[in-house]
Amino acid sequence: MPPSPDSHPPAQRHPADRLAHAIARAGTAACVGLDPVLERLPPAIDTADAAGAIEDFCTGVIDAVADLVGVVKPQAACFERFGWQGVRALERTIARAKDRGLYVILDAKRGDIGTTSAHYAAAAQGMGADAITVNPYLGPSGLAPFLDAGLQIFALVRTSNPDSDRVQAASLTAGGTVAEAVARMLTELGRGRESGQGQSPVGAVVGATKAGRAEAAAIRTAMPNAWFLVPGIGAQGGDVNDLAAIRRPGTGGPDQAGLIVNASRSVIFPAWTEYVWENDVQRAAEALVRELSVV
Amino acid sequence: MPPSPDSHPPAQRHPADRLAHAIARAGTAACVGLDPVLERLPPAIDTADAAGAIEDFCTGVIDAVADLVGVVKPQAACFERFGWQGVRALERTIARAKDRGLYVILDAKRGDIGTTSAHYAAAAQGMGADAITVNPYLGPSGLAPFLDAGLQIFALVRTSNPDSDRVQAASLTAGGTVAEAVARMLTELGRGRESGQGQSPVGAVVGATKAGRAEAAAIRTAMPNAWFLVPGIGAQGGDVNDLAAIRRPGTGGPDQAGLIVNASRSVIFPAWTEYVWENDVQRAAEALVRELSVV
Repeated sequence: MPPSPDSHPPAQRHPADRLAHAIARAGTAACVGLDPVLERLPPAIDTADAAGAIEDFCTGVIDAVADLVGVVKPQAACFERFGWQGVRALERTIARAKDRGLYVILDAKRGDIGTTSAHYAAAAQGMGADAITVNPYLGPSGLAPFLDAGLQIFALVRTSNPDSDRVQAASLTAGGTVAEAVARMLTELGRGRESGQGQSPVGAVVGATKAGRAEAAAIRTAMPNAWFLVPGIGAQGGDVNDLAAIRRPGTGGPDQAGLIVNASRSVIFPAWTEYVWENDVQRAAEALVRELSVV
Repeated sequence: MPPSPDSHPPAQRHPADRLAHAIARAGTAACVGLDPVLERLPPAIDTADAAGAIEDFCTGVIDAVADLVGVVKPQAACFERFGWQGVRALERTIARAKDRGLYVILDAKRGDIGTTSAHYAAAAQGMGADAITVNPYLGPSGLAPFLDAGLQIFALVRTSNPDSDRVQAASLTAGGTVAEAVARMLTELGRGRESGQGQSPVGAVVGATKAGRAEAAAIRTAMPNAWFLVPGIGAQGGDVNDLAAIRRPGTGGPDQAGLIVNASRSVIFPAWTEYVWENDVQRAAEALVRELSVV
């Protein structure tokens, strides 16, 4: 009899099972996006050293939300803009999140030809990330190296920006849209790589504010056993009721629904009302978790 | 009478004109890709400190080729895999290239929603890059922030990896392929942003080994005044004779042909035969320049 997945230490389990475990433990599909912006930090944080300031801020946010959610998603760009010192702050932010038992999705939208993607995968793995967002435009061979490195991936399928239709909603002679064809390609890529629990390591980014219900349902049909990372809740105006269309069919709690629902600005940049700013963040995270109790 | 572009210091000129100037000065469309890989460095370089080793190597390569070519293209992934120390090495590599008067294309394939792309643009600009490669899957609003920051962009249109057909060659009901629709989208994005010399700041990555001649010609027709960054020469097996199909129509020397032709491994990792390894690199760069004299 094979050992149950839970008998393995977390680092050895399949990345999709680790994600399900993190969500089950927290009891919520909520993910807090770490998109630090210098101009919006609480007044208590000294911004003279920019990279140090965003690191201090992210440390405070992680500590404020670690008992409420199971997943955080640092946005690489917000760190990289401060050069190598910013990347050092990102590494320390991820280390803090791992120390607090959180699952970490590095939001980096990486993607290149295979040999180069292998370097990006090594970078993400070296930082301690569990998962990474990737761009599918180059095809499956540019994504496989991330899987080979043991990472969970979330490939852009349907994004929440206003003009994402231009490429993603273009209609194909073979039927459906580019996004739907990408979804099928991703399912193929994940085949044979599922965990013992039937979870695919190939997930999708599906914007809550963008895909129409019919298109969103088509993407779910094409990726029945995938995790969807759903941005666009909170500040970006997504409606939690739209989430029903992209849940996994016929499943139970949030660890079975196949959804991770991210909010960034609405949680990490609430109105600063408290002397202890972390309390404001904690209350905003609690509100997010309540809002997502429908998932 | 407006001042001629050449009366401006380089930093103030349009990035596409700066590129034309760099190519005219060198007299070649050749670009040397800086894709350092620890395992392939010349034996003379001590690899105990990985990030220091790739920085030393890139410094040597830059010095070896600076009088032969006008453009270098550091591959971000090869540096990022060594964490923040690798990113510091990348910053120093770019600074060295700028000191030697080279035009620098940061090969990072970035792309996100607009606000996040603005952070990536700030990162590239902070490093001193003149141009950056980007991914068009999210649509034009994810690319505009790079232009707003004063960078030249090269968007992936048709890449040289074996399975790039999966997304890029999909056939659209509106006619043509996804790659061709992306090319038209990019031309639209560049409209009104051309330099006084009519050069677009929106270029394309078009793989020499991949796009069939007819498709390549269609991409050129859709992007008549764009710079094409052409990887896949040298180690990737591209044929320089295929370049004729994607030159700008009816134009003169390499600064007018609208092509930058990149070789990485064949130049930076030749057989190490010399005591002074930089001599091997220099000879390989000279061979590339000779090979590209047809452009």
